[in-house]
Amino acid sequence: MEMLPSLNTPFAPLVRRIVAEATVVNDRILKIDHFLNHRVEPEFMAAMGAELAERLRPFAPDLVLTAEASGIAPALATATALNRPMLYAKKYSPVVEPPALARVIPSPTKGGETMLMVSARYLQAGMRVVLVDDFLANGKTALALAEIVAEAGAQLVAAGFLVEKCFQDGRSELTARAIPIATLAQVERLEDGNVVMRHA
Amino acid sequence: MEMLPSLNTPFAPLVRRIVAEATVVNDRILKIDHFLNHRVEPEFMAAMGAELAERLRPFAPDLVLTAEASGIAPALATATALNRPMLYAKKYSPVVEPPALARVIPSPTKGGETMLMVSARYLQAGMRVVLVDDFLANGKTALALAEIVAEAGAQLVAAGFLVEKCFQDGRSELTARAIPIATLAQVERLEDGNVVMRHA
Repeated sequence: MEMLPSLNTPFAPLVRRIVAEATVVNDRILKIDHFLNHRVEPEFMAAMGAELAERLRPFAPDLVLTAEASGIAPALATATALNRPMLYAKKYSPVVEPPALARVIPSPTKGGETMLMVSARYLQAGMRVVLVDDFLANGKTALALAEIVAEAGAQLVAAGFLVEKCFQDGRSELTARAIPIATLAQVERLEDGNVVMRHA
Repeated sequence: MEMLPSLNTPFAPLVRRIVAEATVVNDRILKIDHFLNHRVEPEFMAAMGAELAERLRPFAPDLVLTAEASGIAPALATATALNRPMLYAKKYSPVVEPPALARVIPSPTKGGETMLMVSARYLQAGMRVVLVDDFLANGKTALALAEIVAEAGAQLVAAGFLVEKCFQDGRSELTARAIPIATLAQVERLEDGNVVMRHA
């Protein structure tokens, strides 16, 4: 599937803040938790959600799906702009008895594995679903959610992310499954403590 | 501290939906996850956030604090209406080495214990903080966050909740610490599969 350039046009307000404010921990990890996934600035989050909503609206979604916890703020902001409900997969210890719509994924920041779970009551056959999350990195959360959507008989029509880490495999994993991707900022690589953006 | 009645006036749109739509699992547990803490309706969440913001605004908060995951949506909605940043405590396995601002709490739904953690960078001495969460039940999360706020040298000026379970000890625990409480709906008890509201 060809990448639609407009889906991945850099969103200047976000790109500027990443370049100016991100903390580069090492050549794999950048921290922008002061406005993205720990502290949230409502007005800026709403602006990012509105921008992502504009790119996802042509896919005519019925539902915005994400995973707790860092996906909730961007998904709610996007769902608000789309005027569609937002559903977040809950995370449980994999020892909990797995119900219908669940997948186990690795949990690098929290250690071990975690189970993503969605109630079948809210994800129904025939629904057009867009996935929204803060980061597209290795794509494991996105793929688990895509499998859950497929198992529900719903259709994952597109996936939107605030920040793509281009040096990880997430995009190719999703593209291989023909899932269109929208991103607002694309981090090409992390180098000597600096963030190198793709389209800079 | 005397309870200010206006802080706990039932918010009719929420009370109506709880009475009409809540699933009463047993005499301790009610589920309203179709619009509160699994599936979220952005417009309704914004209305609840606006209402809570109106009650919390007189406390002149600098920051809205909550805990992941179910607190994020109501806290973001409230922070949006207050035009203040929102900070959510992250949850980690207690085996992670505890940094400065952290407390271990029981995790009934996820099993065992979990650690609430806030970066000291975003919770600073002198800040006026309001706590926002979906439920006030036994108050353990709220008390842990109150301790974190105190440890940071900040001031917890009030706490707001969408739903209070009056048959648990949360209110008395917070009131004993002189923390003003705002709630939008008060569940007096669960009885024979029905929800009995306090002010009905």
